[in-house]
Amino acid sequence: MRVVKNINNNVSLCIDSQGREVIAFGKGIGFTRPPYEVPLTMIQRTFYNVNQAYLGVIAQIPEEIIDVSTEIVDNANQQLGDRYSANVILTLADHIQFAIKRQHEQVHLKLPLLYEVKHLYPNEMKIGIAALALINNRLSIQLPEEEAASITLHLVDYGNKEINPSSIKEKSKLTKVTEFIETQMNIKIDKTGFNYSRFATHMYYLFERIDTDKNISSENEKMFELLKVQYPKTYDCAIAIKNILNVEFNDEELLYLIIHINRLCSREDCYR
Amino acid sequence: MRVVKNINNNVSLCIDSQGREVIAFGKGIGFTRPPYEVPLTMIQRTFYNVNQAYLGVIAQIPEEIIDVSTEIVDNANQQLGDRYSANVILTLADHIQFAIKRQHEQVHLKLPLLYEVKHLYPNEMKIGIAALALINNRLSIQLPEEEAASITLHLVDYGNKEINPSSIKEKSKLTKVTEFIETQMNIKIDKTGFNYSRFATHMYYLFERIDTDKNISSENEKMFELLKVQYPKTYDCAIAIKNILNVEFNDEELLYLIIHINRLCSREDCYR
Repeated sequence: MRVVKNINNNVSLCIDSQGREVIAFGKGIGFTRPPYEVPLTMIQRTFYNVNQAYLGVIAQIPEEIIDVSTEIVDNANQQLGDRYSANVILTLADHIQFAIKRQHEQVHLKLPLLYEVKHLYPNEMKIGIAALALINNRLSIQLPEEEAASITLHLVDYGNKEINPSSIKEKSKLTKVTEFIETQMNIKIDKTGFNYSRFATHMYYLFERIDTDKNISSENEKMFELLKVQYPKTYDCAIAIKNILNVEFNDEELLYLIIHINRLCSREDCYR
Repeated sequence: MRVVKNINNNVSLCIDSQGREVIAFGKGIGFTRPPYEVPLTMIQRTFYNVNQAYLGVIAQIPEEIIDVSTEIVDNANQQLGDRYSANVILTLADHIQFAIKRQHEQVHLKLPLLYEVKHLYPNEMKIGIAALALINNRLSIQLPEEEAASITLHLVDYGNKEINPSSIKEKSKLTKVTEFIETQMNIKIDKTGFNYSRFATHMYYLFERIDTDKNISSENEKMFELLKVQYPKTYDCAIAIKNILNVEFNDEELLYLIIHINRLCSREDCYR
C-alpha cells in the first residue's frame, strides 16, 4: 500500500496494489513523508470510494468517533442491505461530533418528531436507537433520546436505495380527498392550519393501514353509532370518501374520519 | 488579501490585513501559485470562521449551489437572529447537492413529517419553504415539497441558539400521565405501539395548547356528553389527568383524551 498524501498523524490517502484510491487508518501512518510504502501490518482500517471532499472532515474528527460511526454504518448495512457508502461513515461522524458539541447547549429535535420518525422509518429507527446506545456507552456521554431520531433521519437522508416511492401517490390521494370535503361540506379549508396538519397526518396513516390491510380497533368503535345519528352530513361525507378511495374500513376508522372532518369545519380553519 | 492556499480555480484560503483566515471566492483567484497578494477587486465573496475541515467540501460543490446556500443562510440569519455560522452555508450546500443528486432516485422524507416539521418549527419552516423555491428557481430543477422539511431540519440541526428547552419537562409530564393511565385503567401500555405513538404526539400538542392557552373547538364538542355516559371509567381517568396537569380544558379536549385512552386500552396495545 502506497501512501500518497497524509491527512493527519493516523490517517492517509493511499493507492492499493490494484491502483485504487483508499483512505487508510493506522497509528502513526501519517508521520512519514509521502510517497512511501506502508507495511500492511500498520493499517487498522481502510475506506474505499470515499469522496475526497471529505478528507478535511476526516482530519478533524477524533478517531473514537470514526470508530463508532463505522460500527453504526456497518450495522445499518447489515440490517438494511448495503444501503450506505463509506462516505456516510464520515458524514455521520461529522453529525455525531456536532451532536456532542451541542449536547449542553440544546435539545434539538422535538418530542413528537421522535415518535413520528419511529413509525415512519421503523427499520432505520432500530439502527438509530442502537447507535445512540453505542455512542453513549463508548464515548461516555449522555445524548438525549431525540438524538436517536436525528441519527435515523441522517440515515434516511443518505440512504441510496429507494425508500418511499408511494409518497407521490399518497399526496395526490390527500389532495383528492381534501377537495372532496371542501365541495361536500361547502367550505374552503385553510391548508396552513393546525387541524389540517393533523388531518393530513391521520390520512397518511390511514392510507398505510389500507395498504397493509390493518384497521384500528378499540373500545371506541361503539361511539360510531352515536355519531352517525348526530352528524348525518359529516357521516355521508365520510362514507363518500371511503367510496372514493375504494376501500373497506371499519366503524372506528369512520369515527375518526368524522371527527377530523368536523375539526376541519371549525370556524378558525375554513371559510364558508 | 494574501492567498495562502488554493482550493480550486475560484476559491482560495487567504489571510486578510488583520491576520485573520478567510475563504475567498473569485473568478480565477486559484490560478496563481500561492503565496501571493490578490487584488480586492478580484474577490467576489468571503467567508470568515470557516472550519478548515470543510475546505474539501467547498472544493467539490458547484459555485451556483454555494450561491443559493449563502442566500438561504443569510435569509435565515436575518429572520431568526444570527443563529448560523458560515460553516452552515457549506454543510447546507453539501446537503443541497446531495438532494439534487438523489432527486431522480427517491423521495426521501415522508409526507407526515412535512406536516409535523411545519408545526414544530414554523419559523425555520418558512425559511425552508422559501429556500426550496429559491433552489428550484435558480438551479432550474424541481425538488419535491418534502425537501423544504429536509432543509428545515438541517437548519434546526445546525442552529446555535437554544430551540426547545421545554422538551425535557414535557417528556416527564408525558411519563407521569402514561403511568397514571396504566394504574387507573389497570393496564400495561406497549410503548412501542402505534396508538401510544399517536397518543404521545397528541399529548405534546395538548401541552403546547395549554402553554399558549388555546383549546381546540369545533363541532365535535357536542359529542362529549354522549361519551361521558358511555365510558364513565375512561371519563374519570381523563378528568383526573386534567387535575394532575392542573389545567383547564374544554369538553372537546376531554373528548380527545377519552378517545386516546380507549385506544391505549385496546387489546393489541396493552396487557391487562
